[in-house]
Amino acid sequence: MPRSSTVPPPVTSVLEAAGSWLPSRMAEVETRLAELTADHGRALAEDAGSTLSAGGKRLRPLLVLLCAGPAASESAVRAACAVELVHMATLVHDDVLDAAPLRRGRPTVAARSGRDRAVATGDLLFSRAFAELGIDGAEQQVALLSSASVGLALGELAQRRDAYDPKITRERYLERCALKTARLFECACAIGRAGDGGALDPELTRFGREIGLAFQLLDDVLDVSGPPERTGKARGTDLLDGTVTLPLILARERDPGLGEIELRSLDPAGAVAICDRIAATGSLDEVRTLAQGMVAAAKRAIEGARLTADERRLLGLVADGVVERYS
Amino acid sequence: MPRSSTVPPPVTSVLEAAGSWLPSRMAEVETRLAELTADHGRALAEDAGSTLSAGGKRLRPLLVLLCAGPAASESAVRAACAVELVHMATLVHDDVLDAAPLRRGRPTVAARSGRDRAVATGDLLFSRAFAELGIDGAEQQVALLSSASVGLALGELAQRRDAYDPKITRERYLERCALKTARLFECACAIGRAGDGGALDPELTRFGREIGLAFQLLDDVLDVSGPPERTGKARGTDLLDGTVTLPLILARERDPGLGEIELRSLDPAGAVAICDRIAATGSLDEVRTLAQGMVAAAKRAIEGARLTADERRLLGLVADGVVERYS
Repeated sequence: MPRSSTVPPPVTSVLEAAGSWLPSRMAEVETRLAELTADHGRALAEDAGSTLSAGGKRLRPLLVLLCAGPAASESAVRAACAVELVHMATLVHDDVLDAAPLRRGRPTVAARSGRDRAVATGDLLFSRAFAELGIDGAEQQVALLSSASVGLALGELAQRRDAYDPKITRERYLERCALKTARLFECACAIGRAGDGGALDPELTRFGREIGLAFQLLDDVLDVSGPPERTGKARGTDLLDGTVTLPLILARERDPGLGEIELRSLDPAGAVAICDRIAATGSLDEVRTLAQGMVAAAKRAIEGARLTADERRLLGLVADGVVERYS
Repeated sequence: MPRSSTVPPPVTSVLEAAGSWLPSRMAEVETRLAELTADHGRALAEDAGSTLSAGGKRLRPLLVLLCAGPAASESAVRAACAVELVHMATLVHDDVLDAAPLRRGRPTVAARSGRDRAVATGDLLFSRAFAELGIDGAEQQVALLSSASVGLALGELAQRRDAYDPKITRERYLERCALKTARLFECACAIGRAGDGGALDPELTRFGREIGLAFQLLDDVLDVSGPPERTGKARGTDLLDGTVTLPLILARERDPGLGEIELRSLDPAGAVAICDRIAATGSLDEVRTLAQGMVAAAKRAIEGARLTADERRLLGLVADGVVERYS
């Protein structure tokens, strides 16, 4: 259960469906992120730049801008960058924690430049995020992003605490997903409006939460199902890291022996074998169905949100895309 | 050159010299810090709590409150906590980077709970810092603290880049100290006023910078001079980490062989021997004199700052204390 990032969401279709304001704002985000990671010398530019360019399709900035709407100000662009910088920082630190060699098929900062430099690079990206809000951010934006960051760190700590315990419950797993992934999606949906003094909309936050959870569940399915050429990492990477996710938790109910596996002694081949055994129980489809239910809940939430029909349609496309990319 | 933290500054004498407002505000800081590190479950409370209780004498919060003055609001207390939380986060991450077993004579979080948990604990403390400003912080406070945090991370990266290079220049060393230590002292002096809408005072920032630099220089002297029972760590720890500091840089000019040592192959006994050789050149006194000059510059800076006579006197005591503790 690394933070879900392996497979880019269908940002392209949303960009096409939106008016020209969205591609233009997203381009501003991209330019600004490139500036922010380039202005600290070559070594950092390489480390942060590779994280940046390997950075998927910017789902979180997209959510920030979509929720801010076509009238999104400069402040929403900064907020979008800030959220993405926090996401990047967590990816860099996650790879330190997991000693991960690859992310999206490329060497991680930890693997290329050492874990030491990766810790400091993550700190820099994180600091940069708040510096970005400091330029013209509203108090509420800082409160939202820092509170989400607290959640991410708590989720990470919970995952460390649970490591190598094959008996982790479904509730505990979902609690971790809520902290480690969904909190930043929630924040992305709330923060764009906050910069322009808009009121928080609990339905929009709910939307972010549900698609964040769905995103993580489906990412955890991919860790079991692969294929590696699509995910950019070996099957069973989570198992090797000692991270027990929902596919295994549900599989355990049908194949109780899976609750007894000694995760610490797994090797890569053993992990792939466990993945096959998990898949054989049918639990992957069960997790996919749960994720689809979360996406449906997300779409129901935006029905009640204060949005224009067009904004609602675009957010619906994002939600659908989360499932489609993984189907 | 770990961030200077080994020896507590003479906060007590300043507290005694100030009116009752200062001890009372400092007590609020302490209570709030304890709350912030206690409300995330037992494991974190242990890790963060030990960092908190080993946390020296809160020089940075003291500076925040002194520069905010007796009329300091609740916002200054929060800013003081935020600055200390960033400091604590960097200590926890530094100990991950250095794989340090001890800080102030106690096991580090990295040593006790593993480097993984220490990375996440540092992230949490860091997030908490900005969450604290998010409660009622002014935009300017966020800008100040995040910009200082960017500096800290850049200083850390510079130190990693310079590691094991015995030919590092004095200028490069001072640049690193400015980023890695002085930036947070500058921020501490500026941020207390910013929360109450006060204008930044460049003289006050200068004061913070100079005592921050002096603090780091003297800390680096202690790494060479010991004694370990006072510093809470072995002599030559910096050398073993590959960190070349001013005592060695100046000693090189008198004992050129010191520019040729192979830092990577040093063992603890070898590091102590190099410390003796550095001390024999007289460079430690030279560094102490430079630090005293910085403290004098700090005191000159506050002559020109917008302060009451009493505020100036108390800041002067802090500046003197930085030198006295190390003399």
